[in-house]
Amino acid sequence: MADVETITYPAEQLHEFMVRVFENIEVPTADAKTAADVLASADLRGIESHGIARLTVYHEMVNVGRINPKANVTIVRERKATATIDGDNGLGLVVGPKANDICMDKADQVGTAWVAVRNTNHYGIAGYYPLEALKRDQIGWSMTNTTRIVAPLWGADRMLGTNPIAIAFPGKEEPPIVIDMATTTAAFGRIEMAIRKDRPLPDGWAIDKDGYETNDPHKMVDGGAMLPLGSERERGGHKGYCLAAMVDILCGPLSGANWGPFTPAFSLAHRDPDQWVGKGIGHFFGAMQIDAFIDPDEFKQQIDHWIRTFRATPAAPETDGPLIPGDPEREAEVIRRRDGIPLVIPVVEDLRAVSKQTGIPFE
Amino acid sequence: MADVETITYPAEQLHEFMVRVFENIEVPTADAKTAADVLASADLRGIESHGIARLTVYHEMVNVGRINPKANVTIVRERKATATIDGDNGLGLVVGPKANDICMDKADQVGTAWVAVRNTNHYGIAGYYPLEALKRDQIGWSMTNTTRIVAPLWGADRMLGTNPIAIAFPGKEEPPIVIDMATTTAAFGRIEMAIRKDRPLPDGWAIDKDGYETNDPHKMVDGGAMLPLGSERERGGHKGYCLAAMVDILCGPLSGANWGPFTPAFSLAHRDPDQWVGKGIGHFFGAMQIDAFIDPDEFKQQIDHWIRTFRATPAAPETDGPLIPGDPEREAEVIRRRDGIPLVIPVVEDLRAVSKQTGIPFE
Repeated sequence: MADVETITYPAEQLHEFMVRVFENIEVPTADAKTAADVLASADLRGIESHGIARLTVYHEMVNVGRINPKANVTIVRERKATATIDGDNGLGLVVGPKANDICMDKADQVGTAWVAVRNTNHYGIAGYYPLEALKRDQIGWSMTNTTRIVAPLWGADRMLGTNPIAIAFPGKEEPPIVIDMATTTAAFGRIEMAIRKDRPLPDGWAIDKDGYETNDPHKMVDGGAMLPLGSERERGGHKGYCLAAMVDILCGPLSGANWGPFTPAFSLAHRDPDQWVGKGIGHFFGAMQIDAFIDPDEFKQQIDHWIRTFRATPAAPETDGPLIPGDPEREAEVIRRRDGIPLVIPVVEDLRAVSKQTGIPFE
Repeated sequence: MADVETITYPAEQLHEFMVRVFENIEVPTADAKTAADVLASADLRGIESHGIARLTVYHEMVNVGRINPKANVTIVRERKATATIDGDNGLGLVVGPKANDICMDKADQVGTAWVAVRNTNHYGIAGYYPLEALKRDQIGWSMTNTTRIVAPLWGADRMLGTNPIAIAFPGKEEPPIVIDMATTTAAFGRIEMAIRKDRPLPDGWAIDKDGYETNDPHKMVDGGAMLPLGSERERGGHKGYCLAAMVDILCGPLSGANWGPFTPAFSLAHRDPDQWVGKGIGHFFGAMQIDAFIDPDEFKQQIDHWIRTFRATPAAPETDGPLIPGDPEREAEVIRRRDGIPLVIPVVEDLRAVSKQTGIPFE
């Protein structure tokens, strides 16, 4: 980000603005705060693409009636350790945390739980949800399917979303291990960045509209597709495709949500599919009480040992050695809590437009 | 395999031989049959590296007292939806199916379950276990940590196993979607094959003992390491490392098994670590009753639709279009059930040696 112009804002100021914007589009105050929390966690953790940069889209989608600001989240099927939830076409930022709470409550009762969610919308960073589980001495999982933008291996069309998987494990003295990964080779935000800087993409990230591998980010955006983790057959691209398929099926067919190429458009700039095969997009939340498997203190000591052991791995040439999953985001959070959140100018301009439209002061 | 000399045997003959060899090392008959089933499923599905080719190692490890043939599998901690199981240092081929049964029974009661297993050994192909779950209208998960052979991204040492993840989803008219993938770029069996044929490795598979990327399979085997899915930072190698870490932690610290570089050696040819941090290796089994989330018939119809939709994806240039996960293994199984199991000569020689040693006829 160093070579892109930004303006820095205190995290609290952005949070307050988000709450007021959500309230402005009739999201109840408690839900508006939750939604702002989810977006703020992305900005704090340095995942700018999923933070306040998306506020404009949510605002717009609610304003035109595509997302329901006052969703009534209901359980439509239930066992002791499972639930299927209908999100009433609400903000994923509101539906997701509610479903995750239900999942964690169930895990407290019987040791573990899975909750499938349909009729919902984009839910922010996948990593937000397992971070909540850590507060309850649980290991949390989170997955979501998303608008199609990824080609299956050997395919020449957008058939899957970036379909992330997140999970987190608490340490005792060490900070938690936090895994939060799209099942693509690279994040879409990095393709947007390449366009903004007019730089070529690394090999293995994208194909053009005819299915040929391309290094031109414009060709990916212009009807091309991103590639799944592994990129090509020789490097295990079928495995990234398998992971994206797994997330798609758990979130879509298992909950009754849309899946694959039938997922709804993320914003008004994109076109919805010609038919629906379910309701909205889908999420899939899991929770596991650590105490249901092993003494939590013993587990956390082992995690400390795991972290220290992996940090001590001999470094590969020209590197500083392995990181622990979650390191970069935690380091970003320390800096951003202290110094504020840097926003790129196009995002600032979008937020100023929302401010003008709603009368809510931004700066 | 076409250019490697093989001898073909009927699947039943190999199965019978395996049962008798396991019985010969005092594995109870029912367990011997289960163990043979697991190995046979690998050979039938074309995953030769995990089938009867491993019988010699198991036979040897039991013979020298490193694996307990008469393991008493016990539940050491339990909730309605979870269990932690001690495998009594048994064959993973016996402990795994028992733990998986316990998991599926629990899922039948409360909708879903996870079972963590410690003090166990290598359990065959990860995909065997979710295939069992399909028989009960469940979605099964299976993971295991394994002997260290993979470097974390930016590391120059073997710190993780190939740590596979498997899951399967039933169709109604279509065959099931079966995902079974090591979290490495390529299977170790393909590196062994490159050595046998004296061919270079593709880029992104391996590093040498100093941590430099190498195309020489000998340099990988000689103190080098395999690379996680994604291979390098630009292609998402941190994500493959994250997946391998996730499997390692769920199977190791959560069950009380060894993890990472402390996992026991797979065979007598490898050296055990200098210290233990748990017992044996670990597995992690999950089961989800489909009916706990959605009408199973509706789910299976959606899976059929999913499969047909993805098969109809426009093909990338010079390909026949995307496969459905599990296609290659199912096609192998049709051929192998009909024509028999081809074994490479070194495996045949190993089995002849076991036959000679035990007096059990092989051919």
